[in-house]
Amino acid sequence: MSELRIVPLGGLGEVGKNMMCIEYGPDILVIDAGIMFPESDMLGINHILPDWGYLRDKRDRVRAMLVTHGHQDHIGALPRFLEEFDVPVYATRLTRGLIDVKLRGARLPRSAAFHTYDPGDVIEIGPFVVEPYHVCHSIPDSVGLGITTPAGLVVHSGDFKFDHTPVDGWPTDFAKLGEFSGRGVLVLLSDSTYSNRPGITLSESALNEVFDKIMREAPGRVIVATFASLISRIQQVVDSAVKHGRRVAIAGRTMVENTKMARNLGYLHIPEGSLLTLGEIENLPARETVILATGTQGEPTSVLSRLSTGRHPSLRVQAGDTVLLSSHTIPGNEEMTHRVINRLFQRGAEVLYDAVAPVHVSGHASQEEQKLLIDMLQPQFFGPIHGELRHLKHHAKIAHQMGVPEECIAVVENGHQLTCDDRLHIGERISGGYIFVDGARAGEIGAKVMYEREGLSRSGFVTFVFRMERQTGRPVGRARLVTQGFVDPADSAQLLSEAEEVALRAARVAPGTPESEVEHQVQSALARFLRRETGRRPAVTAVAIPV
Amino acid sequence: MSELRIVPLGGLGEVGKNMMCIEYGPDILVIDAGIMFPESDMLGINHILPDWGYLRDKRDRVRAMLVTHGHQDHIGALPRFLEEFDVPVYATRLTRGLIDVKLRGARLPRSAAFHTYDPGDVIEIGPFVVEPYHVCHSIPDSVGLGITTPAGLVVHSGDFKFDHTPVDGWPTDFAKLGEFSGRGVLVLLSDSTYSNRPGITLSESALNEVFDKIMREAPGRVIVATFASLISRIQQVVDSAVKHGRRVAIAGRTMVENTKMARNLGYLHIPEGSLLTLGEIENLPARETVILATGTQGEPTSVLSRLSTGRHPSLRVQAGDTVLLSSHTIPGNEEMTHRVINRLFQRGAEVLYDAVAPVHVSGHASQEEQKLLIDMLQPQFFGPIHGELRHLKHHAKIAHQMGVPEECIAVVENGHQLTCDDRLHIGERISGGYIFVDGARAGEIGAKVMYEREGLSRSGFVTFVFRMERQTGRPVGRARLVTQGFVDPADSAQLLSEAEEVALRAARVAPGTPESEVEHQVQSALARFLRRETGRRPAVTAVAIPV
Repeated sequence: MSELRIVPLGGLGEVGKNMMCIEYGPDILVIDAGIMFPESDMLGINHILPDWGYLRDKRDRVRAMLVTHGHQDHIGALPRFLEEFDVPVYATRLTRGLIDVKLRGARLPRSAAFHTYDPGDVIEIGPFVVEPYHVCHSIPDSVGLGITTPAGLVVHSGDFKFDHTPVDGWPTDFAKLGEFSGRGVLVLLSDSTYSNRPGITLSESALNEVFDKIMREAPGRVIVATFASLISRIQQVVDSAVKHGRRVAIAGRTMVENTKMARNLGYLHIPEGSLLTLGEIENLPARETVILATGTQGEPTSVLSRLSTGRHPSLRVQAGDTVLLSSHTIPGNEEMTHRVINRLFQRGAEVLYDAVAPVHVSGHASQEEQKLLIDMLQPQFFGPIHGELRHLKHHAKIAHQMGVPEECIAVVENGHQLTCDDRLHIGERISGGYIFVDGARAGEIGAKVMYEREGLSRSGFVTFVFRMERQTGRPVGRARLVTQGFVDPADSAQLLSEAEEVALRAARVAPGTPESEVEHQVQSALARFLRRETGRRPAVTAVAIPV
Repeated sequence: MSELRIVPLGGLGEVGKNMMCIEYGPDILVIDAGIMFPESDMLGINHILPDWGYLRDKRDRVRAMLVTHGHQDHIGALPRFLEEFDVPVYATRLTRGLIDVKLRGARLPRSAAFHTYDPGDVIEIGPFVVEPYHVCHSIPDSVGLGITTPAGLVVHSGDFKFDHTPVDGWPTDFAKLGEFSGRGVLVLLSDSTYSNRPGITLSESALNEVFDKIMREAPGRVIVATFASLISRIQQVVDSAVKHGRRVAIAGRTMVENTKMARNLGYLHIPEGSLLTLGEIENLPARETVILATGTQGEPTSVLSRLSTGRHPSLRVQAGDTVLLSSHTIPGNEEMTHRVINRLFQRGAEVLYDAVAPVHVSGHASQEEQKLLIDMLQPQFFGPIHGELRHLKHHAKIAHQMGVPEECIAVVENGHQLTCDDRLHIGERISGGYIFVDGARAGEIGAKVMYEREGLSRSGFVTFVFRMERQTGRPVGRARLVTQGFVDPADSAQLLSEAEEVALRAARVAPGTPESEVEHQVQSALARFLRRETGRRPAVTAVAIPV
């Protein structure tokens, strides 16, 4: 039976953030292919991919990949996705530029066909008509999607806010939303990220005054840290710098490349001579300079973190500098960010950040904006997406308060299929979580290895190697104990030599006892001893070498 | 030369939070002995002690331990401290009760002399006159300290807020502060925790209305999670529950014990029959019950976390339950807390927390209260304490704005000595950081072991054991490769068998090559191979067993 199916596929904790599928009958559209960054207890994990296993046996039914905007959590998994799926990719011009910059090293398959779509386009893809429309977000050239299916019109909000005075002068496309509304909206899938926040999210322009004041009053250099993809923020900093007779240099490879690309494409306007290299700007009086940098999340290898610890090759933070973190701290990064801030203070800089000065606005709609979208579109069905379960619940409550009946709202987790007739149905759950990716070339990492790392991170390991005489079953000669992350052998020589004795005693078995059994006994005895003596549980392994 | 010295000694990131010394000539008073809990990248660490090494050769000069209040970051290190220092301990009645509960298992030395002091007492200790005065904080019976030294009066604010309508009806002692002011304050050491927050911190009573609304309207059980030591919050919950015909049970050992103790001492008033056991309350209609629980920080073994994952032995969260997190999330715990909240939603509960409802107020003074204290006391010198460097800097700025000259304000880190004449001098830095404590009976853990754990947590370990024929210097027989936390051997058999070959090839050395040199070569070759193949750096060890 032909019917509309909506399936959020990935996002760690967040629903449908990294990938969504819209299906009608055999045809499938996929929206976004992003990565997530690990939470702090996901040890050694580089990034996390959406689990698109569900699509694997439907390869030839996927009609297109539609990209909403150029943030990593929406484009970062494209290379991996395109290795498996040979489908056309649609993205706006700047988004495509960011895909090119971000994924330069990633060897995109040659066959991948990239199409640039523009807000306002009407594109037929299989049984679907796709209409990207402009939305404001913390990156320019973002779109939401109107997708007309044989069952009706589905609107996917993308990541959005309603900003009446955006830096690029291009507000969210109210006319298009009105038009959708006129046609009748079957399903609205809407960004829930800020469903906890009452009121409206401030306009980007609200920062202009703050930047102007800082550029005017700062006695020396101004160092502004922000996200490398926050093109509009870069524009604001440059505008304000130029206005106050300062020139700008950029520290951080991705930001340099993004700036170059956005300038080439006409999304960033920097007067000739205002953008210098780090080397050039050094010769100017501090009072006439601004440095743009990355590293607002305290990432140890970022520019800002290196500045805070004095490990940057060419820049030094000093008294007289004003450092601005124009960003919000992503939950889980607070400790690292606070350490960087404390260290910058230690070096004598004045530091301004979210908690003490209005130096950042978000790119996501707050409650009143979420209500406005629902009110404008009057959807028959409502599916909150982009957020943790708690955000979705709040967003659902908002929609219900606005008159959407409860049976027409569905809060689902990744991998649940939604269908609708007179109500929204939540289908069976398919695989649709996420996949840990670890290391550069290494593959996916399972729960077993993660569990081992968790144990090792707490108490380290002890490996005990001993020789066992085949005839007598007795340990002979010198044994070896290898340990890391457990105790410092220099401080704990006594403990470790007692441990060796305990292990050797346990190794005295009846002749003919199988090696593996001896090893098991030694292992147990050693683990028991160490736990009793230290209260800790290192990963203990015994290796018997028969001689 | 006799002079006044002030030395903050411990607190991870926070200055003087866990321990402060006030010295005059040879005599030393120590204020508080608390522990900190590790940040998320301090792997396997249980808790952190202040480093009081500075006091070790001054044992017989320490006159007393003065405790300001009963939170773990002010009392948790007492047992360890009292093992080394045989000094009288002064604490208020409730604080002493909490010391007894918290440290019951800790075997306090017999000789430790405990003195109960009451706000308003005037106690001579050596050359000092100590006057504890009542302050409001998130735990009852908290005090600040007036310490008259031969150099002048030092006021230590403790952790405080100005609450005009505290739950226990006992506001901060303005009269005493006025009296101090009249006498003239030489140095004010004041709580900086909330120096980022404009305005005033809401009164505890502000929560009464919120609790009343919830108790009245919640259709089923109300589960309130809060800190086990937040006696006043327990009082508020009980009061509101009783008012709305609900009875209360407590889940969580420490909270049960604290409640019992505080009731016995008269700090908590619960009508007969209102407090039931978990078993008893099960028989009542859900609508007539409240459960108080611990675990607001998402700690995996806490009651709330067990409820969220369905692992609590007797309680189940279900649709109809209203769960309240009456707490703030300590930075670094956001991810864990959000997971618990999401899981509670998943189980069908309504969840109210800081970000969506006014269910918590802090125990720390905001900027206007900090100003009020400075204004009342008009100190000659000002030392911001209790906070990270960034908080201290803000607090210093506030004091300066209020007229304290810059040279009379000092922002220092732990281990810096402060002295004063016509200005505040920052002396040389002595040891005064912190000491990691790991495991139950284990001792202190150094940077080396922490560094190893960090590496293990990312990439695990590989230990390669091989037999080496003494005469030929050749590897013989079967080798063994032990690994954990690196890759799953089941998925990576090919990689590991290639690794073995690489290692064995590297082990073919000239006869007579020392074992350690062979091991070194094998280790390097193996590490290089694994890094190239996987992009990861497990801890590689090679063990040669000569046969």
